[in-house]
Amino acid sequence: MEHFADRLLLEIEKKGTPLVVGLDPVFESLPAAIKEDSNFNDPNDAQAASDALLEFCTKVLKVVSPHVAAVKINSAFFESYLEPGLEAYHAVIQEAAASGVLVIGDVKRGDIGNTAKHYAQASLADPQFDGVDDLVGPDAVTINSYMGGDTAEPFITVAREYGKGLFALVRTSNPGAAAIQDMKLENGEPLYLHVGKLVAKWGEKDIGKRGYSLLGAVVGATNAQQLADLRAALPSVLFLVPGLGAQGGTASDAAKAFKSDGTGAIINSSRGIIFAFNDAKYKDAASWEKAIELSTLETKRQINEALGR
Amino acid sequence: MEHFADRLLLEIEKKGTPLVVGLDPVFESLPAAIKEDSNFNDPNDAQAASDALLEFCTKVLKVVSPHVAAVKINSAFFESYLEPGLEAYHAVIQEAAASGVLVIGDVKRGDIGNTAKHYAQASLADPQFDGVDDLVGPDAVTINSYMGGDTAEPFITVAREYGKGLFALVRTSNPGAAAIQDMKLENGEPLYLHVGKLVAKWGEKDIGKRGYSLLGAVVGATNAQQLADLRAALPSVLFLVPGLGAQGGTASDAAKAFKSDGTGAIINSSRGIIFAFNDAKYKDAASWEKAIELSTLETKRQINEALGR
Repeated sequence: MEHFADRLLLEIEKKGTPLVVGLDPVFESLPAAIKEDSNFNDPNDAQAASDALLEFCTKVLKVVSPHVAAVKINSAFFESYLEPGLEAYHAVIQEAAASGVLVIGDVKRGDIGNTAKHYAQASLADPQFDGVDDLVGPDAVTINSYMGGDTAEPFITVAREYGKGLFALVRTSNPGAAAIQDMKLENGEPLYLHVGKLVAKWGEKDIGKRGYSLLGAVVGATNAQQLADLRAALPSVLFLVPGLGAQGGTASDAAKAFKSDGTGAIINSSRGIIFAFNDAKYKDAASWEKAIELSTLETKRQINEALGR
Repeated sequence: MEHFADRLLLEIEKKGTPLVVGLDPVFESLPAAIKEDSNFNDPNDAQAASDALLEFCTKVLKVVSPHVAAVKINSAFFESYLEPGLEAYHAVIQEAAASGVLVIGDVKRGDIGNTAKHYAQASLADPQFDGVDDLVGPDAVTINSYMGGDTAEPFITVAREYGKGLFALVRTSNPGAAAIQDMKLENGEPLYLHVGKLVAKWGEKDIGKRGYSLLGAVVGATNAQQLADLRAALPSVLFLVPGLGAQGGTASDAAKAFKSDGTGAIINSSRGIIFAFNDAKYKDAASWEKAIELSTLETKRQINEALGR
């Protein structure tokens, strides 16, 4: 399998956008047509609710996959429905992979040694067990950096084996992140920059043809200056940029994640796209799917405009 | 339900030890009697392997539960077997809860807002879905601190609702942790101490009768001075101390996690106990279960000795 970063850059070029759609499905926010359907309408039934999430995500993928480079699937929203939820999560990964986008599993796992290896097998590897060896894992997952290189290394080993990628948390988009990630170190450097440099170092042996490592970084869109500083400091690190839309980041903030050649990042939007049908702006759309498509195209346009395309 | 910290302290007093046995089952290391049993002997069959882990953990619980305050179940080793593994993980929680110990789910989840809420529902809450509402979640889970209070707060809400607890990563026991957690801040304080103080603050509204918050901290046994500094700085925070045995921490290092009244921490030992039957020291034990029991009692004795009991 080709190097993850090269595959991702190719897909971005093919679709003409670094936009990633985040699948963060919440039962209560689903379109009425799904949450009121008698097959799904019991949120106390973990199987029915999981089926509803799968139905919704499958339809969203049909709409968005032709337009975007990747989707990011947030496992928490499936895990809360226990085994049926996990099954739905795996099913959404299969649907997404088959729909012609790269798939990022947003799992934020972080542990060390043999434990991290097992998390990497669980969340990133293609299953190798009898009976499910036709399934694929996602193309990449998010990991937590706090435990250091002992988390990254076992994930990198699995990513290398399967031609996959990783995004390690560096500067997240939430307000509360500042109390830890923005702390200044003795040398005057903020912690997020220190962690970013470590991420670059952990990934330096696994650089693809286009100059990017299989180990990327999560850097929020909510602080343009931090994005710019990190972009300048970490030339070999691809950024996954969350926080656009509902969390307050703008496309012109997010544009700071890119190099002058237009590469370097993918921009995630979740709620602003997948729940666009709840947004007054799209109330005249012919269907909930159409609202999602219009919001995808509008977000794509805003990002391309911010990138001067 | 009584406050988590009060329940934990009571159980420690009842069993006469702050020892926690870590269930980190690895198929390859299981007793021959289990991994060669025809019901389980196919590690490529996720169901058979998950059944083997459950069989092993159930037997380990029978041996250790009368002797210890709590068990810590590491979800990674189950998650790597996908849905059957998750089912086995939940089954081990039920077995453990029924065996008269407190149960800590070592899941190290970390995300923000609604995502964190869903992780807390998935990993900590007692399931409320039709058909599984007789199941219980663990009494506490581990969480990752890197994203800040936005991770802790939704978990605290769920913990409060169910009378449960949390342990947030502060200083982990792995060598690679130093490159991040030991970094000195501008004010000369190491990051782990800063994070520890935040954890104390996040948990300050949820203190039990005995003076400890439902939000504890993970602090490794591998650096006695760090443990002592954190113990002095965080009087209301219970410590979960990993790293004893296989990771190099000693009982006298771990003793630094306690106050002079003998409270303040639980000490986890995983591989040194559950795989004691592979240790030459216990080669004359009458059975693999007996080796585990002997190792449990010996570890308990070492900790009590270090605590001057």
